[in-house]
Amino acid sequence: MDKIKNGWFSEVSELWPGQSMCLEVQEALYNERSKYQDILVFKSKTYGNVLVLDGVIQCTERDEFSYQEMIVHLPLCCHPNPRKVLIIGGGDGGVAREVLKHKTIECIDMCEIDEKVIEVSKKYLPQMASSFNDPRLKLHIQDGFEFIANRESSYDIIITDSSDPVGPASSLFEKQYYELMKKALKPDGILCSQGECTWLHLDLIRSMQEFCRTLFPSVSYAYTTIPTYPSGQIGFVLCSLNPDLRFEEPVRTLTSQQVDEWQLKYYNSKIHRAAFCLPEFARKAPERRSSPLENAWGDHEVDCMHASSANISAEA
Amino acid sequence: MDKIKNGWFSEVSELWPGQSMCLEVQEALYNERSKYQDILVFKSKTYGNVLVLDGVIQCTERDEFSYQEMIVHLPLCCHPNPRKVLIIGGGDGGVAREVLKHKTIECIDMCEIDEKVIEVSKKYLPQMASSFNDPRLKLHIQDGFEFIANRESSYDIIITDSSDPVGPASSLFEKQYYELMKKALKPDGILCSQGECTWLHLDLIRSMQEFCRTLFPSVSYAYTTIPTYPSGQIGFVLCSLNPDLRFEEPVRTLTSQQVDEWQLKYYNSKIHRAAFCLPEFARKAPERRSSPLENAWGDHEVDCMHASSANISAEA
Repeated sequence: MDKIKNGWFSEVSELWPGQSMCLEVQEALYNERSKYQDILVFKSKTYGNVLVLDGVIQCTERDEFSYQEMIVHLPLCCHPNPRKVLIIGGGDGGVAREVLKHKTIECIDMCEIDEKVIEVSKKYLPQMASSFNDPRLKLHIQDGFEFIANRESSYDIIITDSSDPVGPASSLFEKQYYELMKKALKPDGILCSQGECTWLHLDLIRSMQEFCRTLFPSVSYAYTTIPTYPSGQIGFVLCSLNPDLRFEEPVRTLTSQQVDEWQLKYYNSKIHRAAFCLPEFARKAPERRSSPLENAWGDHEVDCMHASSANISAEA
Repeated sequence: MDKIKNGWFSEVSELWPGQSMCLEVQEALYNERSKYQDILVFKSKTYGNVLVLDGVIQCTERDEFSYQEMIVHLPLCCHPNPRKVLIIGGGDGGVAREVLKHKTIECIDMCEIDEKVIEVSKKYLPQMASSFNDPRLKLHIQDGFEFIANRESSYDIIITDSSDPVGPASSLFEKQYYELMKKALKPDGILCSQGECTWLHLDLIRSMQEFCRTLFPSVSYAYTTIPTYPSGQIGFVLCSLNPDLRFEEPVRTLTSQQVDEWQLKYYNSKIHRAAFCLPEFARKAPERRSSPLENAWGDHEVDCMHASSANISAEA
């Protein structure tokens, strides 16, 4: 529990140097090192239970809906009839919960490398881990990269709900993984991956967009706001082999009634369209090598692929 | 300098209980108590110089453009011919800098209560405080509430760039202040005020929207993302006496060339429209008394009007 000091958890990482989100801790609930990573769960004072992997906040009960709803409904509402879905990662269960709201779903393969994350989520995040008993969900405890290597033209949707590109998830941010996803998608399939934050990792986002464009005719980037992710937001990389797909315009728009029935707290069809409108510094990013932030403040953007996962002791 | 401990500044306040944004400090540059508030400036490791009033981050050189551009260009691009502007607060100079990019501007009255903030900004935030010598800008060191009480049908635009509703800015969040602004606006005038964050202060936002609707036929709410404000975003209240005004559609759209000429890093006409699309929990807020966050986590939303400004000692 060395991340908790004087009653506060501090999220310090070389991925976002010089800044740290801190949450007040009411009670530490769990801390163990699994085969893959350090897993910490604590009850926070104002954000409910919080899951932390290798020192980085993965989700809090108070704001998880923003991320889970957007990483799922952005791609699924762009597909006319999503039936077979692959989830890579997503051990907390939140993504599966949202996918299963779509009536068209016939089956989900979910591939999580760390069984412990699922176990812990079932115990401490029951509102997220609510779908593990659904008969449509098939769970595979395996490395996502290996799992996907053997699939061909199998999925309408592939969602990669990974942690940051250090530690067990690092291979999921590389071109080779996108090549495997391309092969595993059906011809009109769509992929959506956790895509980091424009305020912090524009270089990574830019390079991912570049290699995605060499593989897919349709590539886009959207974002959602979420208080407990670094800098208060996180993005999504979306790709499809369908060259006519316009990600910013959902092919299935949800009625107010559907939004209510699904108990959505973040996603609606207006926010779907808005999520693709980027601030000028991010919109321009693919055009030039250095961003306004770099220009102003030097090379603060860490090369995420090679950043160390070692945590600084903050004592903020 | 008691807000800085072990090389980190922690932003702890009863306005956002249980959470704290921390910035690593390279060098403390200034700290004094003015007649109105505690003023702190430090050089951060990755966000440039940072201005802090009463323990709350007001701006950092790295991300200030998001707030300044949006609080200015949202209202000004909704006005066909903005000539006379009143800025209440805005002592750092960032709002004036953005207003003066509009060629139509003939004069700006700027009313800042605390002369020390201007002095400190000129010294430590020169890129923000770059317009104080512009002949179109007339500076008034006075309480904004008092200043506006004597104006009638005078302004095309009134921008209230205030700190939070505790301390010197508390009166700027009340109905009486909006009545005075209504009187001071020309018939087709527009006001835009700092409007706090939907993730934190939905009750305040809701009650402000309610009293605004009793005064103005056109009322709306938009937001921008900004890493160093609590929860990573902040909103804006927009009102006009023009009943036909649709805030989400700018009457003057900027060309790419204009965006480049003005060196905009956040605002463009697409993000203007997107800024008014709210997440479902915020969009629904006016319809019901309790928000999804309250339902889930009890009464975390502080009644801002009456919150104490006393800071907890964090030691995160």
